[in-house]
Amino acid sequence: MTDVNLATKLSFTGKVLALSGGVGGAKLCRGLTATLTPDQLTIVANTGDDFDYWDLRICPDLDSVMYALADLNDEERGWGLRDETWRTLIAMRRLGGAEWFQIGDQDLATHMLRTQLLRAGQSLSAVTQQIAAGLGITHSLLPMSEQTVATKVNTDQGWLDFQQYFVRDKCQPEVRELHFEGADTAQLNPLVSSLLTDEALAAIVVCPSNPFVSIDPILSLPDCRGLLKKSSAPVIAVSPIIAGRAVKGPAAKMMRELDMPATALAVAEYYGDLLDGYVLDEADAEYVDDITALGIQVCVAPTLMTDLNSKIALADALLTFAASFKA
Amino acid sequence: MTDVNLATKLSFTGKVLALSGGVGGAKLCRGLTATLTPDQLTIVANTGDDFDYWDLRICPDLDSVMYALADLNDEERGWGLRDETWRTLIAMRRLGGAEWFQIGDQDLATHMLRTQLLRAGQSLSAVTQQIAAGLGITHSLLPMSEQTVATKVNTDQGWLDFQQYFVRDKCQPEVRELHFEGADTAQLNPLVSSLLTDEALAAIVVCPSNPFVSIDPILSLPDCRGLLKKSSAPVIAVSPIIAGRAVKGPAAKMMRELDMPATALAVAEYYGDLLDGYVLDEADAEYVDDITALGIQVCVAPTLMTDLNSKIALADALLTFAASFKA
Repeated sequence: MTDVNLATKLSFTGKVLALSGGVGGAKLCRGLTATLTPDQLTIVANTGDDFDYWDLRICPDLDSVMYALADLNDEERGWGLRDETWRTLIAMRRLGGAEWFQIGDQDLATHMLRTQLLRAGQSLSAVTQQIAAGLGITHSLLPMSEQTVATKVNTDQGWLDFQQYFVRDKCQPEVRELHFEGADTAQLNPLVSSLLTDEALAAIVVCPSNPFVSIDPILSLPDCRGLLKKSSAPVIAVSPIIAGRAVKGPAAKMMRELDMPATALAVAEYYGDLLDGYVLDEADAEYVDDITALGIQVCVAPTLMTDLNSKIALADALLTFAASFKA
Repeated sequence: MTDVNLATKLSFTGKVLALSGGVGGAKLCRGLTATLTPDQLTIVANTGDDFDYWDLRICPDLDSVMYALADLNDEERGWGLRDETWRTLIAMRRLGGAEWFQIGDQDLATHMLRTQLLRAGQSLSAVTQQIAAGLGITHSLLPMSEQTVATKVNTDQGWLDFQQYFVRDKCQPEVRELHFEGADTAQLNPLVSSLLTDEALAAIVVCPSNPFVSIDPILSLPDCRGLLKKSSAPVIAVSPIIAGRAVKGPAAKMMRELDMPATALAVAEYYGDLLDGYVLDEADAEYVDDITALGIQVCVAPTLMTDLNSKIALADALLTFAASFKA
């Protein structure tokens, strides 16, 4: 267990790779961008949630990270853009078009431009970079793969596409198993592979995202786990569970349905020997010994990110913890 | 010259086919829908202006007619929907996407749904019907063809796509000639062909639209002119020029550039023996004898449509005039 001085404005050296899903991951990433330079930080986002709707390519996790990094995200709603309007959606409803997935008017521009550029033959990485640059983002944000991987959820109501489960059915169906369609033939983003063998890589962060539907799709890509384990940089996860609850989303419900206790300890056990370090909320300090016994170093810190200061504080605690692995 | 009592709420029998471009045509069509039942009226709109933008299929004239028929059009702006907002456009600008053609947030739903349904294999007629029905329109609105016809404008700056000329370059280039790409191999909408040989057809209306870029594309389709001339119903045009000026759009400027005087008479001469009747504004009564001398019967009526009442009054004057041909 590492003693972290949250008040220190730290100077971290080396590069950081962050594996992120949507909202929780996006918050920590926003904290990381406050401390790390664009040269230092690369964020790789899950694209297993991506899907087509209104003939547009929607990439929810890439967008959540992008909007959070640009300080344009709606913190209260938890997704999409702040000061959003819904005029196109309402007009689409009048015309009898699909409306189960809500796209705001500003958000729509992101999906439209992305789809246009993809159709024109650009890679998802290039498209993401262009849109992120348009929002003023200077840190690197990458999709986990240029190829399509689609998360499928086996439930008590049969197999569902992820967004059917997540949005249309509001996570009500009971989850039995998950499958990442296309992951076996997809390729980990080459920029990520190359960063994973970069000697300057000083930390690999597994963001406080849903382990099953946000992080596992990334880990399921060929060679990804192997490269993570082979890397000289410590792999450090931040628990997405605080005091038995997910801050947002179905992670805790999903854990119970998958016959795991919904605890920060169970997440650490689930990641297992992939991890070198684990950041645990103060509310879960009781698990320190159990996790240490797994051979994983532990850092206890406030992990609930309610504003920019708490995001930066958690990022700094995490980076200080990561720096301690060099010694 | 026919004496028309505008105050008469008339009862017209038989079917009417209206050939329409955008705004001016749409106004008259709105007047026609007030008097004619859905069984009686079929509107065929020019699709030569159609183009792709933001990967969407945009059909400006179909939409202008649709929005006017649904009383949702913006009369002041002259195009698009009333109470429109521009949030997606502004967001697209921020991302560096194209923005030379303005699409409002509500309007966007029309283009998006149309494009989705076309990609799914539906015909433009079927798609138009579905969208029009969504807006509560019960009269028939048809594209002139299911195939693509693209109006090209030869100008002092070379050949331009119609929307480049019309919107991007604001009709500034001097027009030399027009070409309707694809018209020679496209087919007149079969529903229009069949109506043109229907014995119940009692009037063919050439709306007060731009003769060169709104009506000519329809007339350029194989067999269209022949079917119009062969029809037993009178072909009656309403002058788009009032006192030497187009109410909206570049018709008058285009006439001068094409070496025609910008007069209601010149439009009648241009349509020539296609016409059986011509509706002329009171401001242009001086041309009655010249037009009659062309073998075209003339009706003088107020043709400036500034509100719903004046649209209905012109439609009624036109229909009364049309009914007089039976006698």
